[in-house]
Amino acid sequence: MKEKLKEHIEKLIPLTEDEFTFILSHFSIEKYKKNDFLIQQGENVNYCYYVVSGLLKLVFNDKDGKQHIVSFAMEDWWESDFSAYFMQTKAKMSLQCIENTIVFSISLKNYQKLSTELPKMGSFFLKKSNLGHIASQNRILSFLTSNAKERYEQLLKQYPLLFQRVPKTLLASYLGVSRETLSRLSS
Amino acid sequence: MKEKLKEHIEKLIPLTEDEFTFILSHFSIEKYKKNDFLIQQGENVNYCYYVVSGLLKLVFNDKDGKQHIVSFAMEDWWESDFSAYFMQTKAKMSLQCIENTIVFSISLKNYQKLSTELPKMGSFFLKKSNLGHIASQNRILSFLTSNAKERYEQLLKQYPLLFQRVPKTLLASYLGVSRETLSRLSS
Repeated sequence: MKEKLKEHIEKLIPLTEDEFTFILSHFSIEKYKKNDFLIQQGENVNYCYYVVSGLLKLVFNDKDGKQHIVSFAMEDWWESDFSAYFMQTKAKMSLQCIENTIVFSISLKNYQKLSTELPKMGSFFLKKSNLGHIASQNRILSFLTSNAKERYEQLLKQYPLLFQRVPKTLLASYLGVSRETLSRLSS
Repeated sequence: MKEKLKEHIEKLIPLTEDEFTFILSHFSIEKYKKNDFLIQQGENVNYCYYVVSGLLKLVFNDKDGKQHIVSFAMEDWWESDFSAYFMQTKAKMSLQCIENTIVFSISLKNYQKLSTELPKMGSFFLKKSNLGHIASQNRILSFLTSNAKERYEQLLKQYPLLFQRVPKTLLASYLGVSRETLSRLSS
Protein backbone atom coordinates (compact mmCIF):
# COMPACT_ATOMS: atom_id res chain seq x y z
CA MET A 1 0.00 0.00 0.00
CA LYS A 2 2.52 2.57 1.17
CA GLU A 3 4.96 1.40 -1.53
CA LYS A 4 2.47 2.65 -4.15
CA LEU A 5 2.49 6.13 -2.66
CA LYS A 6 6.29 6.10 -2.45
CA GLU A 7 6.70 5.01 -6.09
CA HIS A 8 4.16 7.64 -7.14
CA ILE A 9 6.00 10.50 -5.42
CA GLU A 10 9.37 9.20 -6.61
CA LYS A 11 8.24 9.50 -10.22
CA LEU A 12 8.70 13.25 -9.70
CA ILE A 13 11.16 13.61 -6.81
CA PRO A 14 13.71 11.23 -5.23
CA LEU A 15 13.17 10.42 -1.54
CA THR A 16 15.25 8.94 1.28
CA GLU A 17 13.61 6.35 3.56
CA ASP A 18 13.51 8.88 6.40
CA GLU A 19 11.84 11.46 4.20
CA PHE A 20 9.19 8.97 3.11
CA THR A 21 8.52 7.94 6.72
CA PHE A 22 8.03 11.61 7.55
CA ILE A 23 5.72 12.09 4.53
CA LEU A 24 3.68 8.99 5.35
CA SER A 25 3.03 10.24 8.88
CA HIS A 26 0.93 13.05 7.34
CA PHE A 27 -1.44 10.67 5.55
CA SER A 28 -4.12 8.23 6.68
CA ILE A 29 -5.19 5.17 4.75
CA GLU A 30 -8.93 4.69 4.23
CA LYS A 31 -10.98 1.91 2.67
CA TYR A 32 -14.37 2.50 1.08
CA LYS A 33 -17.00 0.28 -0.49
CA LYS A 34 -18.73 0.86 -3.83
CA ASN A 35 -21.26 3.73 -3.55
CA ASP A 36 -19.67 5.12 -0.34
CA PHE A 37 -19.15 8.89 -0.21
CA LEU A 38 -15.74 10.44 0.56
CA ILE A 39 -17.21 13.94 0.15
CA GLN A 40 -20.87 14.92 0.36
CA GLN A 41 -22.15 17.98 -1.51
CA GLY A 42 -22.99 20.72 1.03
CA GLU A 43 -20.72 19.38 3.78
CA ASN A 44 -17.16 20.17 4.92
CA VAL A 45 -14.22 18.94 2.86
CA ASN A 46 -11.47 17.82 5.20
CA TYR A 47 -9.23 15.83 2.90
CA CYS A 48 -7.58 15.56 -0.46
CA TYR A 49 -7.21 11.96 -1.67
CA TYR A 50 -4.60 9.90 -3.48
CA VAL A 51 -6.21 6.81 -5.04
CA VAL A 52 -4.28 3.59 -4.34
CA SER A 53 -6.86 1.33 -5.99
CA GLY A 54 -10.45 1.68 -7.16
CA LEU A 55 -12.42 4.33 -8.98
CA LEU A 56 -14.18 7.53 -7.91
CA LYS A 57 -16.48 10.08 -9.49
CA LEU A 58 -16.56 13.79 -8.66
CA VAL A 59 -20.16 14.74 -9.24
CA PHE A 60 -22.45 17.76 -9.01
CA ASN A 61 -26.14 17.12 -8.36
CA ASP A 62 -28.26 19.99 -9.70
CA LYS A 63 -31.52 21.24 -8.23
CA ASP A 64 -33.50 18.97 -10.56
CA GLY A 65 -31.64 15.93 -9.20
CA LYS A 66 -29.60 15.47 -12.37
CA GLN A 67 -25.97 14.42 -11.84
CA HIS A 68 -23.08 16.04 -13.76
CA ILE A 69 -19.69 14.34 -13.63
CA VAL A 70 -16.80 16.80 -13.36
CA SER A 71 -14.13 14.10 -13.29
CA PHE A 72 -13.25 10.50 -12.60
CA ALA A 73 -10.30 9.45 -10.44
CA MET A 74 -8.60 6.09 -10.57
CA GLU A 75 -5.24 4.62 -9.47
CA ASP A 76 -2.53 7.27 -8.97
CA TRP A 77 -4.92 10.21 -9.30
CA TRP A 78 -5.40 12.93 -6.69
CA GLU A 79 -8.92 14.17 -6.19
CA SER A 80 -11.02 16.46 -4.04
CA ASP A 81 -13.46 19.33 -4.35
CA PHE A 82 -10.35 21.53 -4.53
CA SER A 83 -12.23 24.79 -4.12
CA ALA A 84 -13.88 23.62 -0.89
CA TYR A 85 -10.68 21.93 0.34
CA PHE A 86 -8.36 24.89 -0.16
CA MET A 87 -10.85 27.65 0.67
CA GLN A 88 -12.40 25.66 3.55
CA THR A 89 -15.92 26.17 2.25
CA LYS A 90 -18.79 23.68 1.88
CA ALA A 91 -18.51 21.08 -0.88
CA LYS A 92 -20.11 22.04 -4.19
CA MET A 93 -19.63 18.46 -5.40
CA SER A 94 -19.68 14.92 -4.03
CA LEU A 95 -16.88 12.39 -4.33
CA GLN A 96 -18.30 8.87 -4.49
CA CYS A 97 -16.98 5.35 -5.11
CA ILE A 98 -17.82 3.60 -8.39
CA GLU A 99 -15.79 0.58 -7.18
CA ASN A 100 -14.42 -0.50 -3.79
CA THR A 101 -11.62 2.02 -3.27
CA ILE A 102 -8.52 2.49 -1.12
CA VAL A 103 -7.10 5.99 -0.70
CA PHE A 104 -4.48 7.91 1.23
CA SER A 105 -6.05 11.07 2.66
CA ILE A 106 -4.31 14.26 3.75
CA SER A 107 -5.81 17.17 5.66
CA LEU A 108 -5.18 20.75 4.51
CA LYS A 109 -3.19 21.41 7.68
CA ASN A 110 -0.90 18.46 6.94
CA TYR A 111 -0.68 19.42 3.24
CA GLN A 112 0.55 22.88 4.23
CA LYS A 113 2.83 21.56 6.98
CA LEU A 114 4.40 19.01 4.66
CA SER A 115 4.91 21.58 1.86
CA THR A 116 6.69 23.92 4.26
CA GLU A 117 8.72 21.50 6.36
CA LEU A 118 9.90 19.38 3.43
CA PRO A 119 10.34 21.80 0.49
CA LYS A 120 10.75 18.96 -2.00
CA MET A 121 7.17 17.90 -1.14
CA GLY A 122 6.22 21.50 -1.83
CA SER A 123 7.77 20.99 -5.28
CA PHE A 124 5.90 17.72 -5.68
CA PHE A 125 2.54 19.30 -4.82
CA LEU A 126 3.33 22.24 -7.12
CA LYS A 127 4.00 19.89 -10.04
CA LYS A 128 0.82 17.94 -9.30
CA SER A 129 -1.22 21.13 -9.05
CA ASN A 130 0.17 22.41 -12.35
CA LEU A 131 -0.70 19.08 -13.99
CA GLY A 132 -4.22 19.32 -12.57
CA HIS A 133 -4.53 22.88 -13.89
CA ILE A 134 -3.33 21.71 -17.33
CA ALA A 135 -5.84 18.85 -17.42
CA SER A 136 -8.64 21.28 -16.56
CA GLN A 137 -7.50 23.79 -19.21
CA ASN A 138 -7.55 20.97 -21.77
CA ARG A 139 -11.04 19.93 -20.72
CA ILE A 140 -12.29 23.54 -21.08
CA LEU A 141 -10.73 23.64 -24.54
CA SER A 142 -12.49 20.41 -25.51
CA PHE A 143 -15.86 21.80 -24.36
CA LEU A 144 -15.30 24.92 -26.47
CA THR A 145 -14.03 23.24 -29.60
CA SER A 146 -15.31 19.68 -29.80
CA ASN A 147 -18.70 18.15 -30.31
CA ALA A 148 -19.91 15.13 -28.32
CA LYS A 149 -18.49 12.61 -30.80
CA GLU A 150 -15.04 14.22 -30.71
CA ARG A 151 -15.07 14.43 -26.90
CA TYR A 152 -16.02 10.76 -26.79
CA GLU A 153 -13.11 9.83 -29.06
CA GLN A 154 -10.62 11.98 -27.12
CA LEU A 155 -11.65 10.29 -23.87
CA LEU A 156 -11.44 6.81 -25.40
CA LYS A 157 -7.96 7.55 -26.72
CA GLN A 158 -6.69 9.18 -23.53
CA TYR A 159 -8.17 6.80 -20.97
CA PRO A 160 -9.04 3.48 -22.64
CA LEU A 161 -9.27 1.79 -19.21
CA LEU A 162 -12.10 4.07 -18.12
CA PHE A 163 -14.32 2.63 -20.85
CA GLN A 164 -14.10 -0.85 -19.39
CA ARG A 165 -14.72 0.25 -15.82
CA VAL A 166 -17.21 3.11 -15.97
CA PRO A 167 -20.93 2.43 -16.56
CA LYS A 168 -22.19 4.00 -19.82
CA THR A 169 -24.65 6.24 -17.95
CA LEU A 170 -21.76 7.87 -16.09
CA LEU A 171 -19.67 8.28 -19.24
CA ALA A 172 -22.64 10.08 -20.84
CA SER A 173 -22.89 12.39 -17.84
CA TYR A 174 -19.13 13.16 -18.04
CA LEU A 175 -19.40 13.97 -21.73
CA GLY A 176 -22.49 16.10 -21.19
CA VAL A 177 -24.69 14.03 -23.50
CA SER A 178 -27.73 11.78 -23.00
CA ARG A 179 -27.41 8.01 -22.58
CA GLU A 180 -29.07 7.63 -26.00
CA THR A 181 -26.58 9.94 -27.71
CA LEU A 182 -23.70 8.01 -26.17
CA SER A 183 -25.12 4.73 -27.53
CA ARG A 184 -25.12 6.23 -31.02
CA LEU A 185 -21.53 7.47 -30.59
CA SER A 186 -20.21 4.15 -29.33
CA SER A 187 -21.99 1.92 -31.83
CA MET B 1 5.67 48.74 -11.77
CA LYS B 2 7.69 46.45 -9.52
CA GLU B 3 5.68 47.66 -6.52
CA LYS B 4 2.59 46.05 -8.08
CA LEU B 5 4.31 42.67 -8.25
CA LYS B 6 5.55 43.03 -4.68
CA GLU B 7 2.10 43.93 -3.35
CA HIS B 8 0.60 41.06 -5.32
CA ILE B 9 2.98 38.46 -3.85
CA GLU B 10 2.66 39.94 -0.37
CA LYS B 11 -1.08 39.34 -0.42
CA LEU B 12 -0.14 35.68 0.11
CA ILE B 13 3.33 35.71 1.68
CA PRO B 14 5.33 38.38 3.54
CA LEU B 15 8.67 39.38 1.93
CA THR B 16 11.81 41.21 3.04
CA GLU B 17 13.33 43.78 0.66
CA ASP B 18 16.23 41.42 -0.06
CA GLU B 19 13.87 38.58 -0.89
CA PHE B 20 11.91 40.77 -3.27
CA THR B 21 15.10 41.97 -5.00
CA PHE B 22 16.06 38.31 -5.47
CA ILE B 23 12.58 37.46 -6.81
CA LEU B 24 12.56 40.42 -9.18
CA SER B 25 15.88 39.33 -10.71
CA HIS B 26 14.04 36.28 -12.12
CA PHE B 27 11.49 38.35 -14.03
CA SER B 28 11.63 40.61 -17.08
CA ILE B 29 9.24 43.44 -17.75
CA GLU B 30 7.69 43.58 -21.22
CA LYS B 31 5.41 46.08 -22.93
CA TYR B 32 3.00 45.12 -25.70
CA LYS B 33 0.59 47.01 -27.93
CA LYS B 34 -3.04 46.08 -28.61
CA ASN B 35 -3.23 43.02 -30.93
CA ASP B 36 0.41 41.97 -30.22
CA PHE B 37 0.97 38.28 -29.50
CA LEU B 38 2.77 37.07 -26.36
CA ILE B 39 2.28 33.43 -27.43
CA GLN B 40 1.56 32.17 -30.95
CA GLN B 41 -0.32 28.90 -31.44
CA GLY B 42 2.11 26.26 -32.78
CA GLU B 43 5.25 27.95 -31.46
CA ASN B 44 7.37 27.52 -28.32
CA VAL B 45 6.10 28.88 -25.01
CA ASN B 46 9.00 30.36 -23.10
CA TYR B 47 7.25 32.38 -20.43
CA CYS B 48 4.46 32.60 -17.93
CA TYR B 49 3.11 36.13 -17.47
CA TYR B 50 1.91 38.29 -14.60
CA VAL B 51 -0.29 41.12 -15.89
CA VAL B 52 0.63 44.53 -14.45
CA SER B 53 -1.84 46.47 -16.60
CA GLY B 54 -3.89 45.76 -19.69
CA LEU B 55 -5.98 42.84 -20.91
CA LEU B 56 -5.15 39.57 -22.69
CA LYS B 57 -7.08 36.74 -24.29
CA LEU B 58 -6.00 33.11 -24.36
CA VAL B 59 -7.48 31.82 -27.59
CA PHE B 60 -7.62 28.64 -29.66
CA ASN B 61 -8.06 29.01 -33.42
CA ASP B 62 -9.68 25.90 -34.88
CA LYS B 63 -9.07 24.46 -38.35
CA ASP B 64 -12.03 26.43 -39.72
CA GLY B 65 -10.48 29.67 -38.51
CA LYS B 66 -12.98 30.12 -35.71
CA GLN B 67 -11.59 31.49 -32.44
CA HIS B 68 -12.49 29.99 -29.05
CA ILE B 69 -11.58 31.98 -25.95
CA VAL B 70 -10.32 29.80 -23.11
CA SER B 71 -9.76 32.69 -20.72
CA PHE B 72 -9.16 36.40 -20.31
CA ALA B 73 -6.37 37.83 -18.14
CA MET B 74 -6.30 41.30 -16.69
CA GLU B 75 -4.46 43.11 -13.87
CA ASP B 76 -3.02 40.74 -11.24
CA TRP B 77 -3.74 37.58 -13.25
CA TRP B 78 -1.14 35.00 -14.28
CA GLU B 79 -1.52 33.51 -17.72
CA SER B 80 0.17 31.19 -20.18
CA ASP B 81 -0.55 28.12 -22.24
CA PHE B 82 0.28 26.17 -19.09
CA SER B 83 0.44 22.80 -20.79
CA ALA B 84 3.00 24.01 -23.35
CA TYR B 85 4.90 26.05 -20.73
CA PHE B 86 5.30 23.27 -18.17
CA MET B 87 5.65 20.36 -20.61
CA GLN B 88 7.82 22.37 -23.03
CA THR B 89 5.65 21.50 -26.00
CA LYS B 90 4.32 23.73 -28.80
CA ALA B 91 1.52 26.16 -27.94
CA LYS B 92 -2.00 24.86 -28.49
CA MET B 93 -3.33 28.39 -27.92
CA SER B 94 -2.34 31.98 -28.58
CA LEU B 95 -2.06 34.73 -25.98
CA GLN B 96 -2.90 38.10 -27.51
CA CYS B 97 -3.42 41.67 -26.28
CA ILE B 98 -6.94 43.14 -26.28
CA GLU B 99 -5.47 46.37 -24.86
CA ASN B 100 -1.93 47.78 -24.57
CA THR B 101 -0.47 45.54 -21.88
CA ILE B 102 2.48 45.47 -19.47
CA VAL B 103 3.56 42.13 -18.02
CA PHE B 104 6.29 40.55 -15.91
CA SER B 105 7.51 37.38 -17.62
CA ILE B 106 9.27 34.42 -16.04
CA SER B 107 10.94 31.50 -17.84
CA LEU B 108 10.30 27.92 -16.69
CA LYS B 109 13.93 27.63 -15.62
CA ASN B 110 13.59 30.70 -13.42
CA TYR B 111 10.20 29.54 -12.13
CA GLN B 112 11.76 26.27 -10.98
CA LYS B 113 14.93 27.96 -9.64
CA LEU B 114 12.90 30.49 -7.66
CA SER B 115 10.57 27.80 -6.25
CA THR B 116 13.55 25.77 -5.04
CA GLU B 117 15.92 28.48 -3.84
CA LEU B 118 13.27 30.49 -2.03
CA PRO B 119 10.77 27.96 -0.65
CA LYS B 120 8.27 30.65 0.26
CA MET B 121 8.03 31.46 -3.46
CA GLY B 122 7.39 27.75 -3.96
CA SER B 123 4.47 28.17 -1.54
CA PHE B 124 3.30 31.24 -3.43
CA PHE B 125 3.33 29.44 -6.78
CA LEU B 126 1.59 26.44 -5.19
CA LYS B 127 -1.21 28.66 -3.88
CA LYS B 128 -1.55 30.38 -7.27
CA SER B 129 -1.60 27.05 -9.09
CA ASN B 130 -4.26 25.69 -6.76
CA LEU B 131 -6.36 28.82 -7.33
CA GLY B 132 -5.95 28.37 -11.10
CA HIS B 133 -6.99 24.74 -10.81
CA ILE B 134 -10.04 25.78 -8.76
CA ALA B 135 -11.06 28.43 -11.32
CA SER B 136 -10.80 25.83 -14.11
CA GLN B 137 -12.80 23.26 -12.12
CA ASN B 138 -15.51 25.90 -11.63
CA ARG B 139 -15.55 26.71 -15.34
CA ILE B 140 -15.94 23.00 -16.21
CA LEU B 141 -18.82 22.81 -13.74
CA SER B 142 -20.49 25.81 -15.36
CA PHE B 143 -20.18 24.21 -18.81
CA LEU B 144 -21.80 21.02 -17.49
CA THR B 145 -24.58 22.60 -15.50
CA SER B 146 -25.44 26.02 -16.90
CA ASN B 147 -27.00 27.25 -20.10
CA ALA B 148 -25.66 30.27 -22.01
CA LYS B 149 -27.85 32.74 -20.11
CA GLU B 150 -26.69 31.43 -16.73
CA ARG B 151 -23.03 31.45 -17.82
CA TYR B 152 -23.48 35.05 -18.98
CA GLU B 153 -24.95 36.06 -15.63
CA GLN B 154 -22.23 34.24 -13.65
CA LEU B 155 -19.54 36.05 -15.64
CA LEU B 156 -21.25 39.43 -15.24
CA LYS B 157 -21.49 38.91 -11.47
CA GLN B 158 -17.94 37.58 -11.06
CA TYR B 159 -16.07 39.99 -13.34
CA PRO B 160 -18.21 43.11 -13.92
CA LEU B 161 -15.14 44.98 -15.20
CA LEU B 162 -14.66 42.55 -18.08
CA PHE B 163 -18.01 43.63 -19.54
CA GLN B 164 -16.84 47.20 -19.94
CA ARG B 165 -13.50 46.27 -21.47
CA VAL B 166 -14.08 43.21 -23.63
CA PRO B 167 -15.72 43.56 -27.07
CA LYS B 168 -19.05 41.68 -27.28
CA THR B 169 -17.74 39.37 -30.02
CA LEU B 170 -15.05 38.10 -27.66
CA LEU B 171 -17.46 37.68 -24.76
CA ALA B 172 -19.64 35.53 -27.03
CA SER B 173 -16.64 33.40 -27.96
CA TYR B 174 -15.75 32.95 -24.26
CA LEU B 175 -19.30 31.89 -23.44
CA GLY B 176 -19.45 29.54 -26.42
CA VAL B 177 -22.44 31.27 -28.03
CA SER B 178 -22.98 33.27 -31.21
CA ARG B 179 -22.80 37.08 -31.25
CA GLU B 180 -26.58 37.13 -31.91
CA THR B 181 -27.32 34.90 -28.92
CA LEU B 182 -25.21 37.17 -26.70
CA SER B 183 -27.20 40.21 -27.89
CA ARG B 184 -30.40 38.50 -26.81
CA LEU B 185 -28.89 37.58 -23.42
CA SER B 186 -27.62 41.07 -22.70
CA SER B 187 -30.72 42.98 -23.80
